[in-house]
Formats: sequence, C-alpha cells, structure tokens
Amino acid sequence: MIERAVILSTGDEITTGKVVDSNSNYLADKLNEIGIDLIAVLTVGDVPERLEWAWRSALELGDVVLSTGGIGPTADDLTTETIARLTGKKLWRHEPSVDHMRRLFESVGRVMPENNIKQALFPETAEVIPNPLGTAPGFRMAVRQSNHTAHLVVMPGVPREMKPMMENEVIPWLRLNRGSDKVFATRIFQTFGISESGLDEAVAGLIKPEEAKVGFRASFPQISMKVMVEDVAGAAEQRLEELSQRVRARVGEYIYGEGEVSMEEVVGRLLIEKKLKLAVAESCTGGLIGHRITNVAGSSGYFEAGLVTYSNAMKVGLLGVREDTLKSHGAVSEECVREMAAGAIERAGADVAIATSGVAGPGGGSAEHPVGTVCLALAAKGVSASRRYNFRGNREWVKLLTSQVALDWLRRYALGLPIGGEATIFRR
Amino acid sequence: MIERAVILSTGDEITTGKVVDSNSNYLADKLNEIGIDLIAVLTVGDVPERLEWAWRSALELGDVVLSTGGIGPTADDLTTETIARLTGKKLWRHEPSVDHMRRLFESVGRVMPENNIKQALFPETAEVIPNPLGTAPGFRMAVRQSNHTAHLVVMPGVPREMKPMMENEVIPWLRLNRGSDKVFATRIFQTFGISESGLDEAVAGLIKPEEAKVGFRASFPQISMKVMVEDVAGAAEQRLEELSQRVRARVGEYIYGEGEVSMEEVVGRLLIEKKLKLAVAESCTGGLIGHRITNVAGSSGYFEAGLVTYSNAMKVGLLGVREDTLKSHGAVSEECVREMAAGAIERAGADVAIATSGVAGPGGGSAEHPVGTVCLALAAKGVSASRRYNFRGNREWVKLLTSQVALDWLRRYALGLPIGGEATIFRR
Repeated sequence: MIERAVILSTGDEITTGKVVDSNSNYLADKLNEIGIDLIAVLTVGDVPERLEWAWRSALELGDVVLSTGGIGPTADDLTTETIARLTGKKLWRHEPSVDHMRRLFESVGRVMPENNIKQALFPETAEVIPNPLGTAPGFRMAVRQSNHTAHLVVMPGVPREMKPMMENEVIPWLRLNRGSDKVFATRIFQTFGISESGLDEAVAGLIKPEEAKVGFRASFPQISMKVMVEDVAGAAEQRLEELSQRVRARVGEYIYGEGEVSMEEVVGRLLIEKKLKLAVAESCTGGLIGHRITNVAGSSGYFEAGLVTYSNAMKVGLLGVREDTLKSHGAVSEECVREMAAGAIERAGADVAIATSGVAGPGGGSAEHPVGTVCLALAAKGVSASRRYNFRGNREWVKLLTSQVALDWLRRYALGLPIGGEATIFRR
Repeated sequence: MIERAVILSTGDEITTGKVVDSNSNYLADKLNEIGIDLIAVLTVGDVPERLEWAWRSALELGDVVLSTGGIGPTADDLTTETIARLTGKKLWRHEPSVDHMRRLFESVGRVMPENNIKQALFPETAEVIPNPLGTAPGFRMAVRQSNHTAHLVVMPGVPREMKPMMENEVIPWLRLNRGSDKVFATRIFQTFGISESGLDEAVAGLIKPEEAKVGFRASFPQISMKVMVEDVAGAAEQRLEELSQRVRARVGEYIYGEGEVSMEEVVGRLLIEKKLKLAVAESCTGGLIGHRITNVAGSSGYFEAGLVTYSNAMKVGLLGVREDTLKSHGAVSEECVREMAAGAIERAGADVAIATSGVAGPGGGSAEHPVGTVCLALAAKGVSASRRYNFRGNREWVKLLTSQVALDWLRRYALGLPIGGEATIFRR
C-alpha cells in the first residue's frame, strides 16, 4: 500500500548549481494529483557514500522512492550499483534492453559503445520499465525494510524520457497500489482577467471542501485552477463534470481553456474557426504579441503581419497615424492606438487588428502617463474598441501583461464576449 | 572549519509541486563559487516530524546547514521552534527585531499584527542576521554534534530577501570560516557561436587545472564559461585577470559579454555607441527579435521599427520584396531576406537592418527547405550580407536560435567583426 513517497534526485550538475532540479517539481505535482503524500526530496551528487545515505534514508521514510538520474552509461552513473549493493542483490543483464539499445544506435548509423551495456544491468529482483525514447530503461523493485516494504522506481534524468515513463508506466501502477479503491479525477481551468482571490471567492460558494479539492497556481499572467475529485472510478469523473459545469456557469467568461493550453493556442483555434486574418500593431510590446502568436504551429494560416512601430515617425509612416493625433493626444492615447489598429487592418488587409502603446518603464513615465500606462485598441469590421490601463510591475511584466490582455481581447472578440469592459486590476 | 554544506529547503508549496525550488539552485551555485562542497539538499513540507528528521540529518551531514523558508508569522512556519526543540534551547525575544518590524508596518500605515512577534523569537545562543527588506530576520548558531560542530544558518524563503542576506552576510562569513586563507576570484564569459566542447577544447590548452577551475553552463542559446581562481587575496584576482586576457585573446570573438549581461543589452549598448538606428524585418521569428531588442530599457533610443511579414503578400506589400524574387527563389532564400533587409532600411530610414525567413516547423518543411532552414540578411550602408543556415530543434528553438544569430550579426557588424562567415553548427 503506497501512501508516502520520497523523491531522490541525483547528479553533480544539481549540487553544483549548474541546473535547476525541475524533475522534482514535476514529480511532486504528479504525486499531489494522485493523492500520494510527498514526505521529502533528497538531492545528492554522484558520490557513492552520499548516494548510499540518500537511498537508505529514502527507503526508510517512504512507501515508494522515485529516483531520477544516475543511470547513464558513464562511470559517474552509480544509481543501479548503489541499489544492488544496499539490497544485496546481484546484477543481471536484460537482453531485450541490450537489443533495444543496439537498434537505437543502428537507426542513426552508429555502433553501440560497449559501456552502454551497463544500462541493461539490473538488480536480480527488479522489473524493467522500457524506455522507448532513450537508451536507459528504468526499473522497479520492492525492498523489505524493518517495518514496511518500500518500492523503488528508477527513472532516467532526461525530462523527455522520464516524463512519458512516469505518465505511461509509473502513475498507473501508483494509482493501482495507492491502498484506496478511490481515484482522483482532475481538471485544470486556465483563466485570465480575474485575480486569484477573486476566483477563490467565486468558487468557494460553489464547491464544498468535501466535494473536491480546489487549488490555484498563479503563473503570471495567467491563473490556473485545478479541481480534484477523489471517489470511486466513475463517480469521480461524473462529479468532476458536474462541478465543472458549475464552475463554467459562474466564471466561464474568464476561462480561456481547459487542460494544458496557452492563450495564443486558443486564439489561434478561434481565428481559424471564424476564418479571421489577423494583424498586430505594436509599440510598447515591441514584437511580443507577434512572437506569441507565431509560437503556435500553423499560425501562418491566420497571421498576416505585425507592425512594430516603436518611434512616432513610424506610427505615422507605417500605420498612417495622423501627426495631429500625436500632437494633441500623444502616442500613449486611445486615439493613437485606434488609428494604429485601423492602419494595421488597412495595410495588411486583415479582418481584425490589435494595437498597443504604453510606457513599459523603468524610464519614460510622467505625471500624466506613469510607468505602466498602456492603451489598447481592437479594430475589425464595424468595431473600434479601445481602453487605457494602469498596470503595475517592471518592464518585462508590463510587456507580458499587455500581450496577454491583447490576446484576451482577440479571444473575446472572436467569441462575441464584451471587450475590455470589465474594470480588472492587475497587480504583480 | 566549514568544508561541507547541506541545504534545507522547507515548505508545502514545494512538496506539493506548486513552485519550483529555485532557492536551492541559487545557493548551490553560490556555494560552488566559494569552494564549499554541497553534500545534499533536503526538502520537506511544513510537518513537525519531517522538519525534525531533516534538521537532525542535515546537522549530522554538514559543517554548515543553510535553510530557507519556515520563518514567517503563521502557524505552519516551524523552523525556529524545531531548531529550539532539537537543540534544547529556549526562545528569547530580540527587541531590535521587534522594533524593525513595527517600523516596517508603520511605514506603510499599518499596525503590526501580534503574530509577527513570533518572527523576533530566536534560540538563546543564536546570532540574529538583520533583514532590511522584510519582517523575518535570519539567524546563525553553532550546534555541537557527536563528532563535529555544525553551524546552521536560517534565512527567509522569499528570494528577494534571501539573496541579499546570503550575499551580504552569509557568504562573507562562509569565506572567513572556510578553513583556508585562500579566496575564490570568479569571472563569467558569455559566449555565442561556439559549441561547449569547442570552447572547452580552445580553453583546455590555455588554463592548467592547477591555475583555475573552468566550468561551463549551456543555457540555450548561449554558453557561459566561468573561470574560478583559488588563491590568497590579491594573487587570486591578479591571476584571474591574466587568465582572462589569455581567454579573450583566444576566443574573444565569441565572447559577447562578461558577467551577467544579455546579448540584447550588448547590442543595445553598441548601437548607442555607434549612433546606429535599427530596423528588423522578421518572418520566421515572428516578432521575437523586436521583443528581445525592446526588453532592454532605453531601446527606443535606437530601435525604429519591426516589420513582421509573415505572409508572402506582406513581404511584397510592406517591404517591397519583388514578386519575381519570391517566384524564382521562394520566401526562404538569401535573395528574399536581402530584399527584406533593404526594404526595412528604406521604409524605416534606419542605418542597419536584419531580416529573417525560415521554416520553424513542425510543418512546412520540404526536401529543398527542411524544417530548420533559415535565411538571414543584414543590410547597412555599403553592406548586404546573407546566409542560409540549417538549424535543428523544435519550433521554439529554431525561433530562439535565429533571433540569437541575428543579434550576434548586429553585434559583429557594430564591432567590425566578420558576419556569418564561420561555419558554426548548432545542435539542440
């Protein structure tokens, strides 16, 4: 019965500060999602006595130990032999793994170096976990401790190999052995335009603590909300769906997606669906909106052009903003961004355009236009919306938040939702 | 004498996967820089018996234990009382800390809540470390273990409070107590256009292992190289300067900066220095170059405009690329990017322009132009340089690498170095 986990993370690159241990964060999140309590994360470098200490401690503390790293082909990869020594098991050679590795090398026209054979050696009672994406298979084994049985799971340190192994092999096995006939059904709502506390408040009355666990994760500029229902299979999914409907009914306007999806992907899907060609006219965002739009594969299907008019002369020359507008209202004005958006539509022959102009800081602020003042406009057939915002934060935040609001305007326009009408205050 | 360290990182937000433990990475890097061996990082949630286990283990393993988090004012902040219990010390109230907190609250017009007093309680033998930036002071104390004396250092978990405390108070103390009269002198070189192994090879013959430690950190798309000299004060800095000169003489062309500086900052400084106005014409990078240029405060001083011409029609309409060029050579061609760069110069009245066009993937590749094919051009008075590259990697990487090469071309142009002449192979 698996209730408590320990993560063991190994590698000199972590203990010398060369890389951030993002694997442990990923595993912690996954364990939390399936209701297994993470007692500790132990991180040590590639030193035999430190690995031994960490493995001994981890097996004493946890029902399961999830380990990443230390199963490469080189001399400083010590995980497997440390486990064999600690548990008194012999190492044996797993021929299917040897064959898999040879084929991997052959597929790129290379001969497998002999030291790779090491990656096909496993403690004798281990169950091998295949690694379709790399040379190092993982393995799992049970180790009898003085007062409990600890299970250990050894995975590669490379995230692109470790994550599929965790998701396809380890999580289903953990769920089965969690010592509960209940399962966790989980849904993530991606939101924007509402604060974490606002979201919390709106949802608090909707979902009782005994119905589901609700968690928030603010990853600027979006806030995601996770709803986790624990119940027997079938009932959990059903209740989750029912709770999700309640959530959508209450805060649906702020939810731009469910699951792992970005704002720019959602906007892209909507533009394709509505057959809309997009142009952007950027001043303070400097190209960031275009960059985000084109991070989505297939964006050439709807993105025509971006006009980054950083100077006033370019606003006039490239977008046709009137000299007069700049003189009377300045570049950071609703008048200016409306003309920018209209100019972008016309120059690019687009169906919808969004424009930004503002003071990203740290310099350039004034009493009238303090740092964080940003004007946004959207132009489309029969539509010309604009608004002035007062954002807070440093240059990077002002740019990022402006790009997020701009994308949200496009989403709202495509869906026929009100644009920029809500007085939303964004704070760092 | 402090030679071996343990980092203790606490907080449910880490063990439930809500946040990545970036503090530990920062501390690991700092310890490595001053030559203290990091034995282990122990991470536990806010649970009394787990904290006790972690503290007991850490004090047994290390000469010094650096702890972050768990000293806030709330009930789940348990670090101080755990230490007091483990070491058998009473807690006492440090009046200067109480005063400091009261003043902090008063400065924002609030009355200090009574539970903040908790943050001014310390084990009786502790030495308080002031925290000018927050309410929670840190502290340091020595704890006698069976076979050694362990020093513990408790710091806040908030990075903006922890880092200055580490740098101003803890590192100087660690240096003093490192059991060596030697110091470390460190320099970081930011490089681009040479691979990590190429850099390693080039430098291997220059610096002998007994002269300095050399470390590399590849943070795509740049590679930084750190040179660390351990010697008595004075001699260390002198030798570092001498080694740095050797490094610059050998690979200076690839070094775009020293210390913590980004490529776009370096380019910005050069454009100001040379009084050059910049325009960019982006296709496959979609606005990323403009975004990076405008991440630098003050970029409005040299950045005129970006023209993101994602469709062929826009390359013609906005940049004046000839229909004929697109017909004969395609959009991903040196001919096309040369016309794009020339068009950007002309439209924006700039002194120098850079243009990109390529296949970022995952779709859109062909036998002639596989995914990763990217053409770059630079235009300036009397200059029209272009080159075709074959990059590898996913969409995000191709865009980022292209933007980095483009910025490096600008740097090289401003410095009078050869542009794009070196056959450099970039691999993911």
